[in-house]
Amino acid sequence: MELKVKNIPIETGANVALINIADAAQYGIRAGDRIEIRSGNRKRSNAIVDTTTIMPKHSIGFTKELSDELNLKEGSSVEIEKVEQPKSLIAIRDKLNKRRLDYESAYEIVKDVVNKKLSQNEITAFVVGLHAYELDLEEAEYMSMAMVKTGSTLNLKKDRIFDKHSIGGVPGDKTTLLVVPIVASADLTIPKTSSRAITSAAGTADRAEVLMPVNLSIEEMKKVVSKTNGCIAWGGAVHLAPADDIFIKIEYPFSIDPLLLPSIMSKKKAVGSTDMVLDVPVGETSKIKSVAEAEVLVKDFMELGSRMGIRVQGAITYGEQPVGYSIGAAAEAREALQTLEGDGKSLDLIDKATSIAGMLLEMSEKKNGKELALKLLRSGAAAKKLREIIEEQGGEPKIKPEEIQIGKHVVTINADREGRVLQINNSALAYATRIAGAPIEKEAAIILHKKLGDPVKKGEPLFSIYSNSAPNLSAAEKYATENMAMLVGSGSTMLIKKIVAKKIVQPSFMIER
Amino acid sequence: MELKVKNIPIETGANVALINIADAAQYGIRAGDRIEIRSGNRKRSNAIVDTTTIMPKHSIGFTKELSDELNLKEGSSVEIEKVEQPKSLIAIRDKLNKRRLDYESAYEIVKDVVNKKLSQNEITAFVVGLHAYELDLEEAEYMSMAMVKTGSTLNLKKDRIFDKHSIGGVPGDKTTLLVVPIVASADLTIPKTSSRAITSAAGTADRAEVLMPVNLSIEEMKKVVSKTNGCIAWGGAVHLAPADDIFIKIEYPFSIDPLLLPSIMSKKKAVGSTDMVLDVPVGETSKIKSVAEAEVLVKDFMELGSRMGIRVQGAITYGEQPVGYSIGAAAEAREALQTLEGDGKSLDLIDKATSIAGMLLEMSEKKNGKELALKLLRSGAAAKKLREIIEEQGGEPKIKPEEIQIGKHVVTINADREGRVLQINNSALAYATRIAGAPIEKEAAIILHKKLGDPVKKGEPLFSIYSNSAPNLSAAEKYATENMAMLVGSGSTMLIKKIVAKKIVQPSFMIER
Repeated sequence: MELKVKNIPIETGANVALINIADAAQYGIRAGDRIEIRSGNRKRSNAIVDTTTIMPKHSIGFTKELSDELNLKEGSSVEIEKVEQPKSLIAIRDKLNKRRLDYESAYEIVKDVVNKKLSQNEITAFVVGLHAYELDLEEAEYMSMAMVKTGSTLNLKKDRIFDKHSIGGVPGDKTTLLVVPIVASADLTIPKTSSRAITSAAGTADRAEVLMPVNLSIEEMKKVVSKTNGCIAWGGAVHLAPADDIFIKIEYPFSIDPLLLPSIMSKKKAVGSTDMVLDVPVGETSKIKSVAEAEVLVKDFMELGSRMGIRVQGAITYGEQPVGYSIGAAAEAREALQTLEGDGKSLDLIDKATSIAGMLLEMSEKKNGKELALKLLRSGAAAKKLREIIEEQGGEPKIKPEEIQIGKHVVTINADREGRVLQINNSALAYATRIAGAPIEKEAAIILHKKLGDPVKKGEPLFSIYSNSAPNLSAAEKYATENMAMLVGSGSTMLIKKIVAKKIVQPSFMIER
Repeated sequence: MELKVKNIPIETGANVALINIADAAQYGIRAGDRIEIRSGNRKRSNAIVDTTTIMPKHSIGFTKELSDELNLKEGSSVEIEKVEQPKSLIAIRDKLNKRRLDYESAYEIVKDVVNKKLSQNEITAFVVGLHAYELDLEEAEYMSMAMVKTGSTLNLKKDRIFDKHSIGGVPGDKTTLLVVPIVASADLTIPKTSSRAITSAAGTADRAEVLMPVNLSIEEMKKVVSKTNGCIAWGGAVHLAPADDIFIKIEYPFSIDPLLLPSIMSKKKAVGSTDMVLDVPVGETSKIKSVAEAEVLVKDFMELGSRMGIRVQGAITYGEQPVGYSIGAAAEAREALQTLEGDGKSLDLIDKATSIAGMLLEMSEKKNGKELALKLLRSGAAAKKLREIIEEQGGEPKIKPEEIQIGKHVVTINADREGRVLQINNSALAYATRIAGAPIEKEAAIILHKKLGDPVKKGEPLFSIYSNSAPNLSAAEKYATENMAMLVGSGSTMLIKKIVAKKIVQPSFMIER
């Protein structure tokens, strides 16, 4: 039977051919089967079948992906034949039958994900299978190496390349904006890629974008690093591990992340990192709740790193409250710049940034890393380095902190009693900033006036919310107040929250990758 | 922002709205998020977002499912707003976090599957989650009852309704074509629905269709049963549990079937069954390999049945070889008709059919079920009943066995040595029949000349393959010979097969439902 091509203007993430369900029965083909499509003697390509009632009989619908690959005119005649399932799908079935992944299977799956040879359903089955049966470290290594092999790599030709990664979960964490220039100003190479906000108020890429373009290609990234030793680029533009972007999109509705380690480590390997500090913030309202949990995570990263030739050290950091005093891309970029310029107010930010930078400096065999980092910060060397990076990435190197605008409407939440700040709810603050407009509105912000342990008088300001939209601002105020973003009490306050009705709680953040 | 409607001629199995990825970023919406779509003050509907690069900006693509629901003209303006995830998706996430399903969650999921409120990816995640974490019997009951509640039911208003189900795996199993008329001729009600072949050479619906139409609506089924006490209808046309058809389609590429029990039992409940015999064929080349495995399966069905008000008995049957002498829809219908008409050659078929019918007769409090079943068979009462059913379903009641044609080309495989038939490979015979054209070509067939234990002389015929296509016939012959469909040896033959290279084995059958 000959089928006439119909190009359907839709992307399905895979090379899918749509066939009328009656035609499919004639061929003995079901949805999910693979077919070879032949046009004359020339074109041959494999596709995944989806059956449908709305495709006319004796037609075959090509999704955009398949149209692009076969490039056949509307109405062309093709022949089809059922072919065997690809090795990648058999490997997925094996994983669903609890068989371990070997490198070949991992590579076949990742390659076919990137080449659109697996349907979204099949990739979903794979990630859910990984979530349920888990990956051991050997399988994580295979997935990581397969993701590196199927993506772009940054070939800097340096013996040592330094990196840091935070698993996130703490709002206001602008540490990277300080660590990169400190480390780079000590002549170490640090080609940093960062993510944008998914469920948080700002990702490092969003923060950096207030100061400079971050959508760098891999060639642009190479150029910036070779001139300045460092960069702060958005990972999504660099295509370091394209399979991972597909996995993340599929995992999102389920809030699962079985590929967390391969996702992060493949990108580090792709930029050639040899030495990395993993920052794990720990706090009751952070992603990681306890030091014990953080230690297990760091150990996994260390072991996977050693298999992949990356030396990993872990920094378990205090994550009970936001880092510094600001949340929201613009406000955070401003605070980072102020701190680099010598403003000494954000003591926790300075301590965190110089501790992590210090660990990296010591990994490079320098002595007294933390003191050296503090010196590079206080001397203005780091600030100068950041301005070099801003210039090379195409931003305005002379930008002043006070030129960075935040939301034009503001509301301040005051203490309703006297006491001390007993608890700060990280996720409530992040979500309130999102209601105010973040991450799309970079000017949306929360500025803290008090931090944990600070004494507070009744009526004193606790924090202010900023937004360019008055309705969003009042919604954010309502949310922050109702969800007790900042808890003030005396030393004898014990009841934190009364639960009076069952409520479905949606997780408000994922681990950053 | 207003978006202009574009109707996209595609089915995705769900109410999906396609949005340009840049527009989605403006709204802070990601693929998998839910939106409410508003048109003026009138139309409101929820949809699942998919993001794409090919949808023009400020447009919104409606899949066929969504177009059907909203019925808006191309170019209409709509507003969208992000809304919360549905309860069903939260229930799926809970299952992925190892939480047990309660009835409410099961119902929300099944209802949203049927109403196209869950994407194919989300349903995939659910069935893979069920596969990995398994369902306990309480969860199986909840899923079964939810599937009944969301489908059609046959309300026969009878106190007792009888049924049988085979989990399949043995080729040539035409038992149902005998059991239904035997039981119905004893004045018991048996509204049988059957499946078509998925990976086998023929399903009971395919076999019955040689004799009569089987695509009955639920009203037609009711009419046939009220006149004759029985019917043999294709389950797919009756929509007894529409969610299950969707689950089966999704499970197929992965060869997993976590919903096996709910799938079968929901359909029995939907026709009102109170008494059922479950046939579990056991054999080395069948789906179920051992009696012990069969016993566990029967026990699960009994327990689930007792929760659902269905009394289940198990018939563990000999499944080392095909039932009777024929494989393929037409050949099997012919053999069943011949046997009902008094042909006594197919001893195993007669024994299996009268044993199962006898169990059902005894469940109805009749004595000596097997003898009664044999009497109904030998007296011609069952044959008369089948012709009544054929007539009521719209077939030719006077059909003679010799009028049923099988493939016009034939090839016979002969013994290459003297000995006895030591082994018959069920899956190889089924697959060879499929290569010959089954299940699409109903005339494709294999006729056995010998069965297990039969003495064989060198050169004597073992089995013949029939097809209407000469090339398919020789491919089937090649496959059957290479895969040792029938093994002849002496009493001292020990080596069955040499494995000289690793080969990927694809499973050749799924459990029938």
